[in-house]
Amino acid sequence: MKKYVYEFNEGNSSMNKLLGNKGANLAEMLSLGLPIPEGFIITTEACKKYEEYKNTPENIVDEIFNHVEKLEKKIKGKNSEMPMLVSVRSGSSVSMPGMMDTILNLGLNDETVEQLGRATNNRTFALDCYKRFIMMFGEVVKEIDKKKFKKALKKYREDKGYEKNAYFSESENEEIVEILKKVYLEETGEMFITDPREQLRESINAIFKSWNNSRARAYRRMNKISNKLGTAVVVQRMVFGNMDNKSGTAVLFSRNPVTGENKIYGEYLRNAQGEDVVAGTRTPKKFADMENDFPSIYEKIIEYAQILENHYKEVQDIEITIEQDEIYFLQTRRGKRTATAAMKIAVDLVEENILTKEEGLLSISCEDIERLLHPTFKNNEEMRKNIIGKGLPASPGAGAGKIYFTVEKAEEAYNKGEDVILVRPETSPDDIIGMEIAKGILTVYGGLTSHASVVARGMGKCCVCGCEEIEISEDETYFILNGTKYIEGQYISLDGSTGEIYDCKLETEQGKITGYFHKIMEWSDEIKNLKIKVNADTPKDVKKAIEFGAEGVGVVRSEHMFFEESKIIKIHQMIMADTKSSRNDAIAGLMPYQKEDFKGIFEEVKEKGSVTVRLLDPPLHEFLPTSDIEFNKLSDEIGISAKTLKNKAEELKETNPMMGHRGCRLASTYPEIPRMQTRAIIESAIEVAEEQRIKIVPEILVPLIVGIKEFIAIKKIIREEAENVIEEKGVKLEYKIGAMIETPRSALIAENLAKESDFFSIGTNDLTQLTFSLSRDDGTKILRGYLEDGTFHFDPTATIDVDGVGKLIEMSKDGGKKIKPNMEIGICGEHGSDLASILYFDKIGIDYVSCTTYKIPVARLGTAQAAIINKMNNKANRK
Amino acid sequence: MKKYVYEFNEGNSSMNKLLGNKGANLAEMLSLGLPIPEGFIITTEACKKYEEYKNTPENIVDEIFNHVEKLEKKIKGKNSEMPMLVSVRSGSSVSMPGMMDTILNLGLNDETVEQLGRATNNRTFALDCYKRFIMMFGEVVKEIDKKKFKKALKKYREDKGYEKNAYFSESENEEIVEILKKVYLEETGEMFITDPREQLRESINAIFKSWNNSRARAYRRMNKISNKLGTAVVVQRMVFGNMDNKSGTAVLFSRNPVTGENKIYGEYLRNAQGEDVVAGTRTPKKFADMENDFPSIYEKIIEYAQILENHYKEVQDIEITIEQDEIYFLQTRRGKRTATAAMKIAVDLVEENILTKEEGLLSISCEDIERLLHPTFKNNEEMRKNIIGKGLPASPGAGAGKIYFTVEKAEEAYNKGEDVILVRPETSPDDIIGMEIAKGILTVYGGLTSHASVVARGMGKCCVCGCEEIEISEDETYFILNGTKYIEGQYISLDGSTGEIYDCKLETEQGKITGYFHKIMEWSDEIKNLKIKVNADTPKDVKKAIEFGAEGVGVVRSEHMFFEESKIIKIHQMIMADTKSSRNDAIAGLMPYQKEDFKGIFEEVKEKGSVTVRLLDPPLHEFLPTSDIEFNKLSDEIGISAKTLKNKAEELKETNPMMGHRGCRLASTYPEIPRMQTRAIIESAIEVAEEQRIKIVPEILVPLIVGIKEFIAIKKIIREEAENVIEEKGVKLEYKIGAMIETPRSALIAENLAKESDFFSIGTNDLTQLTFSLSRDDGTKILRGYLEDGTFHFDPTATIDVDGVGKLIEMSKDGGKKIKPNMEIGICGEHGSDLASILYFDKIGIDYVSCTTYKIPVARLGTAQAAIINKMNNKANRK
Repeated sequence: MKKYVYEFNEGNSSMNKLLGNKGANLAEMLSLGLPIPEGFIITTEACKKYEEYKNTPENIVDEIFNHVEKLEKKIKGKNSEMPMLVSVRSGSSVSMPGMMDTILNLGLNDETVEQLGRATNNRTFALDCYKRFIMMFGEVVKEIDKKKFKKALKKYREDKGYEKNAYFSESENEEIVEILKKVYLEETGEMFITDPREQLRESINAIFKSWNNSRARAYRRMNKISNKLGTAVVVQRMVFGNMDNKSGTAVLFSRNPVTGENKIYGEYLRNAQGEDVVAGTRTPKKFADMENDFPSIYEKIIEYAQILENHYKEVQDIEITIEQDEIYFLQTRRGKRTATAAMKIAVDLVEENILTKEEGLLSISCEDIERLLHPTFKNNEEMRKNIIGKGLPASPGAGAGKIYFTVEKAEEAYNKGEDVILVRPETSPDDIIGMEIAKGILTVYGGLTSHASVVARGMGKCCVCGCEEIEISEDETYFILNGTKYIEGQYISLDGSTGEIYDCKLETEQGKITGYFHKIMEWSDEIKNLKIKVNADTPKDVKKAIEFGAEGVGVVRSEHMFFEESKIIKIHQMIMADTKSSRNDAIAGLMPYQKEDFKGIFEEVKEKGSVTVRLLDPPLHEFLPTSDIEFNKLSDEIGISAKTLKNKAEELKETNPMMGHRGCRLASTYPEIPRMQTRAIIESAIEVAEEQRIKIVPEILVPLIVGIKEFIAIKKIIREEAENVIEEKGVKLEYKIGAMIETPRSALIAENLAKESDFFSIGTNDLTQLTFSLSRDDGTKILRGYLEDGTFHFDPTATIDVDGVGKLIEMSKDGGKKIKPNMEIGICGEHGSDLASILYFDKIGIDYVSCTTYKIPVARLGTAQAAIINKMNNKANRK
Repeated sequence: MKKYVYEFNEGNSSMNKLLGNKGANLAEMLSLGLPIPEGFIITTEACKKYEEYKNTPENIVDEIFNHVEKLEKKIKGKNSEMPMLVSVRSGSSVSMPGMMDTILNLGLNDETVEQLGRATNNRTFALDCYKRFIMMFGEVVKEIDKKKFKKALKKYREDKGYEKNAYFSESENEEIVEILKKVYLEETGEMFITDPREQLRESINAIFKSWNNSRARAYRRMNKISNKLGTAVVVQRMVFGNMDNKSGTAVLFSRNPVTGENKIYGEYLRNAQGEDVVAGTRTPKKFADMENDFPSIYEKIIEYAQILENHYKEVQDIEITIEQDEIYFLQTRRGKRTATAAMKIAVDLVEENILTKEEGLLSISCEDIERLLHPTFKNNEEMRKNIIGKGLPASPGAGAGKIYFTVEKAEEAYNKGEDVILVRPETSPDDIIGMEIAKGILTVYGGLTSHASVVARGMGKCCVCGCEEIEISEDETYFILNGTKYIEGQYISLDGSTGEIYDCKLETEQGKITGYFHKIMEWSDEIKNLKIKVNADTPKDVKKAIEFGAEGVGVVRSEHMFFEESKIIKIHQMIMADTKSSRNDAIAGLMPYQKEDFKGIFEEVKEKGSVTVRLLDPPLHEFLPTSDIEFNKLSDEIGISAKTLKNKAEELKETNPMMGHRGCRLASTYPEIPRMQTRAIIESAIEVAEEQRIKIVPEILVPLIVGIKEFIAIKKIIREEAENVIEEKGVKLEYKIGAMIETPRSALIAENLAKESDFFSIGTNDLTQLTFSLSRDDGTKILRGYLEDGTFHFDPTATIDVDGVGKLIEMSKDGGKKIKPNMEIGICGEHGSDLASILYFDKIGIDYVSCTTYKIPVARLGTAQAAIINKMNNKANRK
């Protein structure tokens, strides 16, 4: 027969899936010899049975009651006077707010309350416990509105003419108990349950039921937690920190979670229960003060905390209750800490020989690195209640500012010294300036690879996008979200790491890059397999990336600069040119700018890595003039009527531009462009190599390849021009030409393509888009729907789709390495800095990932963690 | 040392790549004992060397002259009086107009002309030959403008006061020879070449050079012939059909190429050279008349023709010259024939035991079947010179009519009894009526899978699309093509099989379906492996398809009918609905129409095969109202302002609709739609099964699947509704639910998908589109460029891309069959009726192909041929 209830001595911390974190850690603490209140654990399997029958099956209830009997015996054996009172707590294998948490003092009724009074010699205390229990049970088990109890209490207090936080006398408490019972009766139509077993049965059912309440479901959906996990329930003898002055409660961390200092940090309250600390009704003292109040206990706690930390090899967040000079450990778990603390603690633990370097690196999360590089909200508990909506977490960081809907107004406000949040339906190159000055960007449409997302990440700026519930008013003076109006100039705050939007101004702070951070990065570099390059288009970004540790530039999007206002006119002219000579004029005009950028980039990178420049790629439509102003300007510039230009633009419009005239197809149609770009790249490389006396091997990347001959044809153009330049300059220069693998076909023919290509750059954004037939522009809504209803259990635009896209990546990698074992094969897409994806890339033997500047440190840690995990898995598999 | 020159007895017909068709067949005829003039063949390899050095290398010239010496000896041995005169002809392994063809009488000069006069005792004849040679050599070798010679001749004639076709006397011929030599000198600056070896060397160079002239290159590009083949050169002793009345020339077919009758068919001329027949200066007699003129020779020719036909097992097209009662065979090749003749000849040859059934089927081309089903142009030689442009061959057949640009004007003209060609930028559902009444459709944009193409093929109507050189005037009264204006009401003709456009009214005729056709189809069915189903959406089309031999319906596009004007309003209403109830109303309104269609289809198919209905698929944008009329109409109907509707439409617009909200994503968003469609399908199936007392197993196809859970979710909706209907009706009904494999991901996960799917339908159109990132709407231009410059050697939207898309198809097939060996896996896309693609599908073991109605007979023959060829290849490989 299956076992649904475990004694603490039957469990350990590795059983957290079955026993929940709380239960498993209690069992572990017991095995370490720490004092914990007696009790048992009802497993997550029981929760699943509850789900199935919408009730806890009788066989499980029987099993529970058997353990209750055992517990009773233990308690009686210890103190025959005390009634058996227990706490009942939920506990899943993942930390999860939103679920029902705790019921204390269970077991109290009109008889046991007297027993408790006698045993503690404090009837007022016993009645106080009874009051608390009736309200707690009524609220969480019977779903009575909290306000009903509060109202009745308030009325009683006011009738008596008491202050808000007044203490009640024994007899007053007696009266209040009766009042609360009456509320209970009125609200439920039944008498308060007096049978402790019945109280327990209903409490357990309520906890199981709360696993599936809407808040818990919403939380799991947002945090990608499976609905199938279920929760365990921990039943333990009540210990009372509020019994007298020899009692108390403490919450502490084994090290300082803010600074990382190796010193116990925490708070304590004498004569109080844990919930009093949390509720904030009394101001707790510092843990250090305990040395005076409870000298012997203080020493013991330090000793135990050390045991726990050494055992778990992590900072511990510990809850303790002291009942009449006896210590009880109620909980221990991984301590949440600031990014700064996380670094210091990891380094210290390694240097203290508690952790190996590998364990140290695994103890830090990529989010820690992320938080260090971007502003975060100050620890702010009221955040949750101010959430007004959620979009996609497009670019991490936190930002608060006033809403503006146009670049013009945003600039105006910025110039007045205001903090700005730019709210746009979606962004376009026209919005760049507005994005630069904003504290954060919020868009209605677009996914994680939309313009807003990509640009914001490049800027290291907080961005939430694709919040399609937002309706912006026609005159762009307000937006409506879930029925509420948010007006221009009103404060909102954005969390780009979660996608959350708040309707208030939240304080932000910037993490500090310390020596510990550098240590972590250094260790990561020792361990990781994957190289990390940057996706950056300007010398400025490249400089920053090199500082962050980039080992080269994975892709310079050569068209990036064309979007600048001063240059886009040349692009317009080039596209709209009717004669070859006017096209050539436009192209020639762009060359100096390209060269300036490329030279700057080569100068920054020096010999620290390779630089890969991708030829002009985007669908032409992205460059077409759209506004009358642009048409008129262009008309003036090139002397063709605006009307003719508009017609031409109309003619060039495509139904599905992503699958249209773009990538290397542009190079086929306008070979003048790759010629100019090649010349700019090769000239830059030669000049910088000479000026700096270094060796540069520029790499030219051809986008959207689908065929061998296509690649050969474009390679021929590039080679011709490159050789011309090299001959003109009279030097020697090695250079590489590679194919971008971003169409399914290029992956399918990769083995043959490898014969012609010097390297492969796998563009996972487009590859995913095409494999799923899910346009990055239009797919957001569909994707969100699929993520919410569980059709997809992950977002393939954020985390690589191993089952589908992965097959194509492996074909590319295997095909390439088969033909050229030393060929460099890298990933250049949003997935390059996603941990789950990195784990996969490391596993299959990709050479490098390329990501945006601000993701470089994250990727450094991530690739190290991936190397460690894959190595562990390999070892495990070999056994 | 490599050999560049072959004697006829060193070759045979299988060496046609090296010797060209002409040379190889001459060698073959010699081995069969047929009389052919002595000579030798210079190989295609020599042509390649010419290409390399832009001259025929000296070692090859030496080799040629060695063979010239041998030839001289042979000729002298036969008739020591005759000078050595030769013909020099080009001959590639593919028939190819545009190249230099023939030089006759080579070897003549002032001395040899006298020798010829003496030997033939006819100096006038000799001088006539000399005249012809000077002109021919001047024109083709020295590139002298033909008109220069003609002008000089005309002047001489007029000076003499002669009629146009007058015969010249011996002395006049002498004078003319001198005049022509003078023209030659003036035009080239050099004397006429008298050295026969030099004449030969220059002629051979000229032929090799002509391989790469622009006309030949253009022809090869259009007909997908490799530029690398090169041409051979045949050098043969001149035989003169024009020597005297015992001489003559004949061109004949071993069977009648028009009717297929087993009787020699041809023309002959006494005392004439072959070119006189071709030039049409004299009217030839029927071959049968030869029996009187040359009784013994007539019998011999019949005997030899039979030998050739029996040997080649094909109708032969034969050229003969008779020189003084001696027969010489100059050429034999496969005889071109009408579709009707092709059928009869194939059946006859099989019944005469000359061919096996397999060989009989291989002797017919799919184009023959095509021509039989669609109108073709009457044999019309002037076609070529009236070509004004070329688009994509979108739907086969021929059509001639007056140009109209709008459906309204087309209808008006049609009602007046005019033949109409509808010319549109591209077609949309609004154009259906115009397309139905037109003789042909011409569009500026769109590829082989555009709306115009697909609809026209469904109608069996001639269509040329994507002719992007056409500019339609703004007021739609004329178009401009290559600088010429074509006005409304003017005649043009279209060849939908070649994409050619002619600026005249060409006569068309309809092929006849005969018993021979049915015999061919019957034999095909015996041999083929692949089942053939139809893509058809209406009972009418399905009826026709069943007549043509369809074995079921591969896909009913359930949305097809929604495009009809009376129904599209309901679709608009459904899409624009703000409330669920108004959406349901719209959907419910569509149900009766759907049922009517489905019932009609089930009734037509009966038990002849399965019917697969695909759920609503196209991107929503295809259904969005576009015109103000539509918006106003919809506004009246559903009481929402036109402005609001327009905003909604704007909101629903997608950047890349093909990768947007379509396919099963619509079913996820609006589950009411698949419910309604399922109900319509299941009710129809039940009702028809009961009425007709037959068993029907309807198949429901879910489009655009990318994930397992996605498919399960939609299957659940379908199953629920289907079970509801079945329960309501109180019957039993088996039905199947299958996934459409049209995204790369569905192919990549096919093995897992097969666990859930009852069958697979592989949609090769979308799969190709996504694999290549080449939108069917926008790709035409890119594709054309790539085909023209040789980047692609085939059009992947027409012929399956085995190297890329094929890998995905094989994954789907292998994955499916691994899980469910009996699972039906079919192809449903344009490739289903393409021979090269069918060959591949047969080879990898696909179960069926599905194609449009008029392609069914083509596919029947094609699948049989594929089975035969694959079987032969397998045997060959096993050896």
